[in-house]
Amino acid sequence: MKNAPDANVLAIDGGGTHCRIAYGSCENHSLVDMGAANVSSDFEGAVNTILGGVEALCAKLQMPVADLIACPCYIGVAGVTGPQMAARLRKALPFSHVQVTDDRPPALRGALGAKDGAIAHCGTGSFWGVQLGGAQKFAGGWGYVLGDEASGHWLGRAALSATLETVDERRCATDFSQSLLAQYDGAAGIVRFATHARPEEIAALAPLVCSAAAQDDPLALALMQAGAQEITQSLTALGWHEGLDLCLTGGLGGEYHPYLPPALQARITAPAAAPIIGALALASDFAREGVA
Amino acid sequence: MKNAPDANVLAIDGGGTHCRIAYGSCENHSLVDMGAANVSSDFEGAVNTILGGVEALCAKLQMPVADLIACPCYIGVAGVTGPQMAARLRKALPFSHVQVTDDRPPALRGALGAKDGAIAHCGTGSFWGVQLGGAQKFAGGWGYVLGDEASGHWLGRAALSATLETVDERRCATDFSQSLLAQYDGAAGIVRFATHARPEEIAALAPLVCSAAAQDDPLALALMQAGAQEITQSLTALGWHEGLDLCLTGGLGGEYHPYLPPALQARITAPAAAPIIGALALASDFAREGVA
Repeated sequence: MKNAPDANVLAIDGGGTHCRIAYGSCENHSLVDMGAANVSSDFEGAVNTILGGVEALCAKLQMPVADLIACPCYIGVAGVTGPQMAARLRKALPFSHVQVTDDRPPALRGALGAKDGAIAHCGTGSFWGVQLGGAQKFAGGWGYVLGDEASGHWLGRAALSATLETVDERRCATDFSQSLLAQYDGAAGIVRFATHARPEEIAALAPLVCSAAAQDDPLALALMQAGAQEITQSLTALGWHEGLDLCLTGGLGGEYHPYLPPALQARITAPAAAPIIGALALASDFAREGVA
Repeated sequence: MKNAPDANVLAIDGGGTHCRIAYGSCENHSLVDMGAANVSSDFEGAVNTILGGVEALCAKLQMPVADLIACPCYIGVAGVTGPQMAARLRKALPFSHVQVTDDRPPALRGALGAKDGAIAHCGTGSFWGVQLGGAQKFAGGWGYVLGDEASGHWLGRAALSATLETVDERRCATDFSQSLLAQYDGAAGIVRFATHARPEEIAALAPLVCSAAAQDDPLALALMQAGAQEITQSLTALGWHEGLDLCLTGGLGGEYHPYLPPALQARITAPAAAPIIGALALASDFAREGVA
């Protein structure tokens, strides 16, 4: 298969909330925005989202589906846990020339472009990435049961746990812990909520922690500092070093800015572009590799 | 209602694994052993277990059910999160003179008798208790999502989390972390297992941590030390002081012995009796209060 370096490509960025599908180049493309696509939590649903998106994009472009699926295609989708899952997804889709990864590479490439740098992504979940000389390395993203440190879920759960520790007098009560106890009608209500809550419901508490910390509530401050320490440790283990740019992404990433060490704070830059632009760039790389 | 101090009483100790029902006194009683009784996770099931147990006990004693349900009765059952749940359970059961609590008071009273002392209970879940001059105080036991520090679930989850941190090079790999990775077919397998596992399945890993720590595996040692620190902090916050006896109960309690500070180690004593004996003692106290 041969493609000119500037040929149009197909790119898919799928996550737990939405899935974007784009055709064209980084600079000039058409895009459709679909629902959730996570191949671990719902494989069939993710495949249907992608297929529906391809049809919608072809309708928008007035282009035959056969032409689109013949394009070089890069898919970065949540829940691709390894080569087995990537192979299963490749097989379930009609693309003839396709590379499949999880959704972290497009996020890192989108945020940094081709430059060296790092990313700390904190949304409902979290992950860490470093890009050096075009090579990418990732850590974290192990899910809310065992990992996702500094994520919305981690922060919400930590807030509830810490509040229960104030009831046991293992830590001092604050206005914030008192407000959580009132909100859930006491410790038993917190336990009841946590036992049945979906991850997003626990993550929905994170903004309360951020705003309480901004008002200097000692308990909320301690939680934000603990999250910032998780980010710092993970990025350091991944190879972040002084002088390397850092993008804080996701709904919660930027909230950690004031709690990070000065050396990290000094290098924080806004992400250059969205993950779908990163996916288009990776699709172009992939198309060029096809020429070589 | 009047009862002589030595009158026969009814006692019920219900937990996530089994429910014991006894009639008589601490020294001399008949007992039946039934299935699980947790009023939070399965209210109707717990009520049926208790009613079935009462019938089985009456059959064993060749005693009319009406006579048994007229006895002073103490019920300590898992999942009684507060006065509302206690009232609901009282109403669902036929006992005429009954006191309802969660299952921690019978465990503490059984372990210590009437003596001053403390308990650290670590099974699938965990809780802490102190008994001083007959008065009991409890902490912990907030469930596996937010609490249950040093429990089997906590230890199993910590082992899997720490193993994923070795993959991210945030901590050093050891024989134990390598064996867990092999057991689950890598990091993706660990994440898959943890996402779908029931709490008991994660708690089932705890004995592996204990035996790896006994063989000086640095990662397993760090986890046991972290659990021991949780126990120490919780007992101290609850009022444990030097010279006060401590019982380590539950399948995992005794495993923390070598990792506790010397002042705690020096006071560790075997539990005097099982929780159902504690429940009988509390039922007798309750019957005597009826006289006063």
